[in-house]
Amino acid sequence: MSNNIEIIGFVAAFLTTAAFLPQVYQTWKTKDVSSLSLPMLILFFIGIVSWLIYGFLKNSPSMIFANAITLVSSFLLMFLKIKYQNKLGK
Amino acid sequence: MSNNIEIIGFVAAFLTTAAFLPQVYQTWKTKDVSSLSLPMLILFFIGIVSWLIYGFLKNSPSMIFANAITLVSSFLLMFLKIKYQNKLGK
Repeated sequence: MSNNIEIIGFVAAFLTTAAFLPQVYQTWKTKDVSSLSLPMLILFFIGIVSWLIYGFLKNSPSMIFANAITLVSSFLLMFLKIKYQNKLGK
Repeated sequence: MSNNIEIIGFVAAFLTTAAFLPQVYQTWKTKDVSSLSLPMLILFFIGIVSWLIYGFLKNSPSMIFANAITLVSSFLLMFLKIKYQNKLGK
């Protein structure tokens, strides 16, 4: 049963992790960050750090996997938002 | 110890849930969906459904809480993206 639960966890992990890749790619390619919200990205990043800690404490491999990767993706989006926002003087 | 773990879970839940609200508000207000990626929104939505099921199976109140609310937020973003994308003929 525990293995079945982890399978669903890894499906979820794969999807929410993969979900960020098109966004990172699109943002990287277009340099268009106008409709990305900086408060969102910052809150989200701190939230992902907390979920990562929670995943370790709950011994949840799928949560640790998902949040470790999403941590990198959300950091990249935050970095791109700050970088290109300033360049355009918005 | 279990209660302490849930406190971290709820901090994470609050942050990643709250993170979506500025994005939903900004998208709603500006109708600017150009830098939101539709593949991201769709994958993310299905991922959140999976995390919600995982949260129930792991008996994790913070995961159920977070993913139930994020489900609504991400559905709204997906709806706005499709609505305004078509209007602009993009």
